[in-house]
Amino acid sequence: MTEKQQLDAIRQQIDAVDEEIQERINKRAALAQEVARIKLASGDDALFYRPEREADVLRTVKERNQGPLDGEEMARLFREVMSACLALEKPMSIAFLGPDGTFTQAAALKHFGHSVNTTPFNSIGDVFREIESGSCDYGVVPVENSTEGVISHTLDMFLNSPLVICGEVVLRIHHNLLSPPGYDWKQAEMVYSHQQSLGQCRHWLDQNLPHAERVPYPSNAEAARHLAETGKDVAIASSEAARIYQLDIATHNIEDEPGNTTRFLVIGKQQAAPSSKNKTSLLLSTKNEAGGLHRLLAPLAEQGISMSRIESRPSRRGVWDYVFFVDICGHIDDPEVSAALKILETEAGMCKVLGSYPEAVL
Amino acid sequence: MTEKQQLDAIRQQIDAVDEEIQERINKRAALAQEVARIKLASGDDALFYRPEREADVLRTVKERNQGPLDGEEMARLFREVMSACLALEKPMSIAFLGPDGTFTQAAALKHFGHSVNTTPFNSIGDVFREIESGSCDYGVVPVENSTEGVISHTLDMFLNSPLVICGEVVLRIHHNLLSPPGYDWKQAEMVYSHQQSLGQCRHWLDQNLPHAERVPYPSNAEAARHLAETGKDVAIASSEAARIYQLDIATHNIEDEPGNTTRFLVIGKQQAAPSSKNKTSLLLSTKNEAGGLHRLLAPLAEQGISMSRIESRPSRRGVWDYVFFVDICGHIDDPEVSAALKILETEAGMCKVLGSYPEAVL
Repeated sequence: MTEKQQLDAIRQQIDAVDEEIQERINKRAALAQEVARIKLASGDDALFYRPEREADVLRTVKERNQGPLDGEEMARLFREVMSACLALEKPMSIAFLGPDGTFTQAAALKHFGHSVNTTPFNSIGDVFREIESGSCDYGVVPVENSTEGVISHTLDMFLNSPLVICGEVVLRIHHNLLSPPGYDWKQAEMVYSHQQSLGQCRHWLDQNLPHAERVPYPSNAEAARHLAETGKDVAIASSEAARIYQLDIATHNIEDEPGNTTRFLVIGKQQAAPSSKNKTSLLLSTKNEAGGLHRLLAPLAEQGISMSRIESRPSRRGVWDYVFFVDICGHIDDPEVSAALKILETEAGMCKVLGSYPEAVL
Repeated sequence: MTEKQQLDAIRQQIDAVDEEIQERINKRAALAQEVARIKLASGDDALFYRPEREADVLRTVKERNQGPLDGEEMARLFREVMSACLALEKPMSIAFLGPDGTFTQAAALKHFGHSVNTTPFNSIGDVFREIESGSCDYGVVPVENSTEGVISHTLDMFLNSPLVICGEVVLRIHHNLLSPPGYDWKQAEMVYSHQQSLGQCRHWLDQNLPHAERVPYPSNAEAARHLAETGKDVAIASSEAARIYQLDIATHNIEDEPGNTTRFLVIGKQQAAPSSKNKTSLLLSTKNEAGGLHRLLAPLAEQGISMSRIESRPSRRGVWDYVFFVDICGHIDDPEVSAALKILETEAGMCKVLGSYPEAVL
C-alpha cells in the first residue's frame, strides 16, 4: 500500500469510530433527559446537577482508562460530555473568585466543563452573596494552599452563611518565573508574587535570584499585570497569566515541591448525596480550657473516623472562644459519621456541618 | 418501579454507554497516533494538523446528528476529542489578536479546541510575526464585520507576508448593553463601543437611548473595561466582556439584525488540502483604467466560479493602482480554479493566492 492508501484506510476507521461515538453521546443525552423527566414529574426539579454522581462517573472513567489518551484528558472530555448533557436542561451559572485567568477560574471550568456560564467576582463574600441571592447556581472559591488570596476568609464566610460545600476541586499548581518580553530576568531587582507562591519557590529563588527583593502581591495574576505595566523585574505566576499579560516564561516549574496542589471548594444551596468516596467539613467550637480540643475530637476517634485536616480560627464571638474547621473522611449519611455527629452536637459549643461532598477526582 | 429504581436503571444504562464512548475515544486516539507514525516515517512531520480533514469530520458530525444534543454542541465535543488526539503528538500554540475575552479568543478556541495553548497579542502584525518566526504554530485574526479592531489591516498584512490562510471561523455575534452594577442604564449620557457595534445597534439605540452620545472605542472589551473603571454610562459588548469586567447585562441581544456574524481567518505556514467545501482568497491588482476590474474578473466568470466577496484597497505601491481581495468558491487544486488562475497570472498586474481553505463549519 502507498502512504496515501494507508492513511485513507485509517481515516475510514476513524470515521466509523466517530459515528459510534456520536451515536452514543446522543444516546447518553437522551438518557439524561429521561432522568430529568422523572425528576420533574416528582417535583424534584432543583437537583439536575448531582456532584456525587459526576464524581463517581469520572472516577470510573479514570480507573478503567487504557490509553493512549491519559486518564486526566479522558476525564476532561467526559466532563465536557456531562456538561453538554446537563446544559440540555438549563446551562448553570457559576460564580468564582476573579479576576479572569486565575487558578480559581481554571478550577471552575475543570469541575463544571465549558457548557456553563462562569462569572468572576471581586471577593469571596461576593461569590457567597451571588449564590445566596439565587443569581448564580454554584460558586468556586480557593480554600487551601492557594496563591490567589486570603483563604481563611473562605472558612470565615461559613460562620454566617446558609450555603453548604457540595464539592472540592484539586489543581496541580506549577509556578513559573515570568519576565517582560526581551528582558533579561537575571537583572531583576524585584520578584513579585503572592506571599504563598514566594514561599513555595523559596529554595529556587535563593539559588537563582539571591539578591532580588521578594515583594508580596494580592494575587499572582496582579503581580503579572504589574510586570506587564513596568516592563522590568520578574513575577512568579501561572503560564495562563503569562499568556494573558503577554510575558515570557523565563523558567518553568520553579516550585520547590513537585506535586504542589491547590484546593478549591464548590459551594451551593444543596447538600450532595454520598458518592463512592466522600469528605465532610465541620465547624466546631469549644471553650478555651485545658483539653478542650482533645475532648472535642474524642467522638471522631471513637468511631474510627479519620481527619484529613484541622484549622483553628478565632471565632470573633467571645474573647476566649475558638472555632475549628475540621475535614473528616465519610458522608453524614454514613452510620459512624452520623453517630459521631450526634455526640458532637451535645458536647461541642457549636457543631455545624458545612457539607458532605465527593472527594476531588484529581 | 419506584422513582429511585427507575433512576438507577437509567443510570446503569448511562454507565454502559459511557464505557462504550470511552473505549471508542481511545480507539480513535490510537488511530490518530498511527496516522502520525506513518507521516513521521515518510518525513511528513509538520502536517499533523489537517484543517481540511477536521472541517470534513465536523461537517459529517453536524449532518448526521439526530439529537437530542444540537449539532453545534456535538461539533464542539468532537472538536475537543480531535484537539485531545492531536495534543498526544504535540499541543499546538495559537496566537490571537487580544486582549483576553475578545471574540477572537472565542473563535480560536472554537476552531482548535481546548487542548491547545492560546496567546493574546496586541496587534494583528504581532500575530503574523509570531507565526513567521515559528514561536506560534497558527494565528487567528478577525477579518470581516468584526467588533474588535481595524479589519482591513488584516488584509494589508498579506501584501508583505509569506503566511497563508488555512481556515476561517464564523461566530454568531450578539451584542449586549452593559452597565456598571447597580447603575440605572436609562441615565446613561454616553454609550461606548467599537464603531461597528454602535452601527449594528443603531436602531435599538435610537429607540431606547436616543439622547446618549455614541462614543467609538478601539474594541468592545476596552469599552467594557472603561465602564468598569468609571462606574457610570453604558457599553455595547459581549456577555464574556460583562463577566470579565464584572458588569451587569442591562439588555441582551440588542443588535438590529439577528444572525449577525463575524468572520476570522486562521493563518499559518502551510496550505490546506481540499476539503469537501472550500474557499480561495486572492489578492489581485490592476491598472486604474476603464473596465480594468471587469476584465480582471472575466476569467473567473468564464470558468463558472462564484465569488463570495470582493474588497478594493489602495495598494500603496503606485499612485493609481488598486488591489482587490477576492474570495472565490473552490480550491486551487480544482481544475476550473486552476485554469482561471493561469489566465489571471498573465493578465493581472499581481495575482497572489492568499490561501485555499475549508469553508467555515458554523
